[in-house]
Amino acid sequence: MAYKSDIEIAREAKKKPILEIGAKLGIPAEHLLPYGHDKAKVGQGFIDSVQGNRNGKLILVTAINPTPAGEGKTTTTVGLGDGLNRIGKKAVICIREASLGPNFGMKGGAAGGGMSQVVPMEEMNLHFTGDFHAITSAHNLLAAMIDNHIYWGNTLEIDTRRVVWRRVVDMNDRALRQINCSLGGVANGFPREAGFDITVASEVMAILCLAKNLADLEKRLGDMIVAYRRDKSPVYCRDLKADGAMTVLLKDAMQPNLVQTLENNPAFVHGGPFANIAHGCNSVTATTTALKLADYVVTEAGFGADLGAEKFMNIKCRKAGLAPDAVVLVATVRAMKMNGGVAKADLGTENVAAVKKGCANLGRHIANLKGFGVPVVVGINHFVTDTEAEVQAVKDFVKAQGSEAFLCKHWAQGGAGIEDLARRVVELADKGSQFTPLYPDEMGLFEKIETIAKRIYHADEVLADKSVRDQLRAWEAQGYGHLPICMAKTQYSFSTDPNLRGAPTGHSVPVREVRLSAGAGFVVAICGEIMTMPGLPKVPSAETIRLNEAGQIEGLF
Amino acid sequence: MAYKSDIEIAREAKKKPILEIGAKLGIPAEHLLPYGHDKAKVGQGFIDSVQGNRNGKLILVTAINPTPAGEGKTTTTVGLGDGLNRIGKKAVICIREASLGPNFGMKGGAAGGGMSQVVPMEEMNLHFTGDFHAITSAHNLLAAMIDNHIYWGNTLEIDTRRVVWRRVVDMNDRALRQINCSLGGVANGFPREAGFDITVASEVMAILCLAKNLADLEKRLGDMIVAYRRDKSPVYCRDLKADGAMTVLLKDAMQPNLVQTLENNPAFVHGGPFANIAHGCNSVTATTTALKLADYVVTEAGFGADLGAEKFMNIKCRKAGLAPDAVVLVATVRAMKMNGGVAKADLGTENVAAVKKGCANLGRHIANLKGFGVPVVVGINHFVTDTEAEVQAVKDFVKAQGSEAFLCKHWAQGGAGIEDLARRVVELADKGSQFTPLYPDEMGLFEKIETIAKRIYHADEVLADKSVRDQLRAWEAQGYGHLPICMAKTQYSFSTDPNLRGAPTGHSVPVREVRLSAGAGFVVAICGEIMTMPGLPKVPSAETIRLNEAGQIEGLF
Repeated sequence: MAYKSDIEIAREAKKKPILEIGAKLGIPAEHLLPYGHDKAKVGQGFIDSVQGNRNGKLILVTAINPTPAGEGKTTTTVGLGDGLNRIGKKAVICIREASLGPNFGMKGGAAGGGMSQVVPMEEMNLHFTGDFHAITSAHNLLAAMIDNHIYWGNTLEIDTRRVVWRRVVDMNDRALRQINCSLGGVANGFPREAGFDITVASEVMAILCLAKNLADLEKRLGDMIVAYRRDKSPVYCRDLKADGAMTVLLKDAMQPNLVQTLENNPAFVHGGPFANIAHGCNSVTATTTALKLADYVVTEAGFGADLGAEKFMNIKCRKAGLAPDAVVLVATVRAMKMNGGVAKADLGTENVAAVKKGCANLGRHIANLKGFGVPVVVGINHFVTDTEAEVQAVKDFVKAQGSEAFLCKHWAQGGAGIEDLARRVVELADKGSQFTPLYPDEMGLFEKIETIAKRIYHADEVLADKSVRDQLRAWEAQGYGHLPICMAKTQYSFSTDPNLRGAPTGHSVPVREVRLSAGAGFVVAICGEIMTMPGLPKVPSAETIRLNEAGQIEGLF
Repeated sequence: MAYKSDIEIAREAKKKPILEIGAKLGIPAEHLLPYGHDKAKVGQGFIDSVQGNRNGKLILVTAINPTPAGEGKTTTTVGLGDGLNRIGKKAVICIREASLGPNFGMKGGAAGGGMSQVVPMEEMNLHFTGDFHAITSAHNLLAAMIDNHIYWGNTLEIDTRRVVWRRVVDMNDRALRQINCSLGGVANGFPREAGFDITVASEVMAILCLAKNLADLEKRLGDMIVAYRRDKSPVYCRDLKADGAMTVLLKDAMQPNLVQTLENNPAFVHGGPFANIAHGCNSVTATTTALKLADYVVTEAGFGADLGAEKFMNIKCRKAGLAPDAVVLVATVRAMKMNGGVAKADLGTENVAAVKKGCANLGRHIANLKGFGVPVVVGINHFVTDTEAEVQAVKDFVKAQGSEAFLCKHWAQGGAGIEDLARRVVELADKGSQFTPLYPDEMGLFEKIETIAKRIYHADEVLADKSVRDQLRAWEAQGYGHLPICMAKTQYSFSTDPNLRGAPTGHSVPVREVRLSAGAGFVVAICGEIMTMPGLPKVPSAETIRLNEAGQIEGLF
C-alpha cells in the first residue's frame, strides 16, 4: 500500500486565500497583514476590538510519554480542529511554530501529517513570517549591548565571568555551544567564555509566548537577568536600556500568524519555546485571541503530559488566566507496545499482552490530568498495523480508568476520521471543568518542585545540593518565590531516566541546577543533561534538501 | 526654521496599496507576493514573462568622495526617480536594502531623506521582507555543516586552521570578530579559531546580488571556497553538499522587493552587499527586472565614484551585461568646502574660494566617469546654508570640465525640486552611451589592480609583497584569471589615506592581502584595514529606540 508523503499531500492542498480564512473568523481584510497569499498576521487593533467577546472553550491536546514509535500530537490537534468544523462547530487550532535549524539535521517538520496538516508547510518549516529571526535579532542585540557596555567602561560593574546571557542562532551548530569571545586584542573587548543556544531556547522566545501585549513584553524583557556583579547582585536587561529596542524588533513577531489546515479551517501558528527549559506552548496572544473568535480552540503542549500538560496548566494557564475545558490525551497502539517492552522492529506484529502492559503509562497520565480538575478523553491515533484486538485492549483499559478512548483515523481521512472524538470533546467541554493548578503561587519554590515530582512523576523524593536549596531560598528572599516551576527533565519517562518506561514509582528526582527566568517568570529546575544547542547528524538532511526543476522543495520532510 | 525629521515625514506619507504601485508597472496582483500592505516581492513567473520586453534606459547615481558633511546619494536617487515621473516619464528606482545591525549603533537609515524617501522606512530599516535573515541563515547553515563534517570524521580532509568560511550575524558585535569555537570537550568538536562578520559582508550576499536566477544562484553558492586542505587545495561549498539547502533558504530572498517613494512611485529595494569587500550595488535581478518594466531606471552604487561607480561598471555591468546610459554625480557645496579644507563647524559660512579649491575632487570623478564612455551630469544636492555664489562656483567649474551641474532641491521639495536635472538626464540617456569597462577579462589580475589604481585613483604604483603576487598568479593558473577586481580601500580619498582629500597624485596603493570570492566571481584586493564587523558606539542608538504610546517607533532615525 503506497501512501503519499506529507509534502506531496501538502503540495496538492487546495488552499484558500488567507483573507477568506480570516473572514471565517470575522477578521476584516484590513486587519490581516498578509505574508504572501497564504499567511497573515492578525493586527493588534482587531485583537483589541474583540476583547469584549465571550471566550470559546479551550481544549488541550497532550500525549503519553513519547516513544520512537511516534504519537502524532500535532496531527491529532489539526485533525480534531478539522473534525470539530466538520460536525458544524466553529473551531480553530493553535500550535507552535517550527524551529528552522533542526530541519537541516533530521527530517521531520512540525505541521502535522497525512491528511491532518497545516499549510503552507514548506514555509512554516523555513522562514515563515520571520518571528524566530526577530527573536534571534532581539536576543543578540542584547548580547552585543552587554559586551559593548563592558568594552566602554563597564559602569554597571558586570562580572565578565558571570554574564548569563548567551547568544542564539536558529541552527544546529555544536561548534558554538562553548566559545571564547572578544579575542584578538584591545579593539575587540575583554576575552571571556561565552556560547550560543538555539533560538527556541531563548528567554525572549518564552517571553514572547507569555506576554499579553507589547507593553507586557517590554516590561518582561526589561526584567530579564543578564549578568551578575562580583557581589552577585543581578544586572537586568533594563539596566542596559535594551528593552525598548528589543520590543521594536519584536513588534510584528508579537502578532499571531494565521494559516489554514488542508480542509481550509483556520489555524494560529505562533511562538515555539523549548519544552524543557521553557514551557513549550504556543503564544498566549494566539490562544486568547482564538478564544475570542471561535467556540472551540484546540491547542497542544510539548512533550508528554508529565511535562507539556503540567507546564500548560501551571505556567501558561496560571499566567494567562486560562482554564482548559477538556483534555485529549493522544496514545498509539504502537507506543503502548513499546511501553510494554516490544522493540521498534517488532511493532508491526500483534501483541495484545504488550499493549495491556504498556497501558500503565497511559493510565498514570489520565489520573494526573484528572487531578487538575479537567475531563480527559483518550484519542488513539490509528496506524495501519493496529489490530482490532489491540485497539480494544486500549479502549478497555481506558474505560476501567473511568475515561473513554476513541479510535481516530484523521491521519488517513482528515477531519472525517475523528468526528466521534470531536463530538465527545464538545460534550465534555460544554460541561466545563473545575480547573485548579497543582500548587498555589505562595508555596515555597522547593516545595513546588517536590509537589510536581511526587504528584505528577510519582517520585519518592527530590534530591538537591545545599547550593540549589540556598539559591531557591535566595530567590524567595528577592521576591521571586511566587513564580511557578519549569521542570527540565527527559521527556521519555515519568522519571529522570529516559529508559524507565511505563509508570515507575519509588524513584528520585535529582535537581542538578536551578535557573531564574525572571522575565518569562518561572524558575527552571534542571534534572539531568539538558541540551540547548543541538548538533547535526553525520548525514544532515540539508545534504539532500534542494529545489527541483519545478521550483519545488525536495528533501525537507 | 524648523524642519520635520525624516521619520516624521515618512509617517505622514500617503502610501498607496502596494498592488496599485505594482499595477503602475504592469505587475498583476497574483504575481505580487505581499508582505503587509505596503511591501511585496515580485514573482519569478512574472519576471520570466517580461524577458521579451525591450530594456529601458539605465541611469547610475554616484557621488564624490564622501565627507562628514553628507552628500545625499540615496536621497538624490529617490528624488530623481520622482522627478522623472513628474515630467511624465515611466521611471523606477533601484536601491539597496539597509543592514539591521548598524541602526542600533549610530542613527541614520538608508531610505533617502527629507521629501525624497522610500517608505515604509521603519520596516526597511528593520526586518523588511526578511532577505538578510535568509542570507544569515544560509551562510550559517554552511558554517555549521563545515564543523559538522570535521566532527564526523573529516573525509574531505579540511585543515581546521584554514577554514575561511566565517559565520555572520546582522548585528554590530565586536565581541564576535575573533573567537575560539568548539570548546568544551569531545561532544562539541575540534577547537579552532573562528569569527563572525556582519551579514552584508557575506559572500552569499554578493552572490544573491549578482545571480541571474535561482539556478545561477545555486551554481555560484556551490563554487564558493570554504576551506583549504593541508596541501592548500580548496574545499568548495559543493563538496559539503550545502548549496541545495542554501538555495532553498534563499528562494524568496532572490525575488526583488517592491515599495514606493513618498510620491507613490515604484521603487525596487533589493540586496545590500558591502561596498568594500564586495561590489556595493543592489541586485542584478532588481535592476534587470526594472529595465523591462520602466523607460528609465535610476540606481546607485556604494561610496564615492572611485569605488562604487568603478565596481558598478567593472563588476555588476560586466557580469550582468548591463550598460549605463547616463551617470549622475552627486556633490554638495558643503562637501566641496570640506575638500577645500574647511572644518565641519565652519561649513555654514560662505567660502567661495574653498568651494573652488575643493572642486578638484569633483573634477577627477567627472573625468574618470567619462572614461567609461558614459555621459556625466552633476547634481548639486542643495543645503539651506548654500549661497548663490558658492553654487555658481560649482556650476562654473563643472562647465569648464565640459559637463553641466544642476542645483537640486528634492530634499525640500521632492520630485518638483529636481525636474531640470531629470530633463537633462532624459536627453543624455536617450542619446545612449559608448560604455566600455575599464579593462578586459583577459588582462592579468595584478595588471587589473594596476589599471584601477592608475586610471581611477591616479596613483603612481601598486605595492604588493611577493606572496600577494604569487597568490594572484596561482589563481590565474587555477582558472580564475578572467575575474574582475573588487577593490577594498578607504572611501574617503582617491588614495588609501583617508585624510588625503581633493585629487591626490603621486601616491602608492599598497595591496595588503587578496581574497578570492569564487562564487561571487571577483578577486578582492585589500588596501589597508577593512572592517567586516563593526562595533557599537559608547552610547548606541539602541538605548533610545522604543515604541511610543501610539505604537510608533521612536529613536530609530
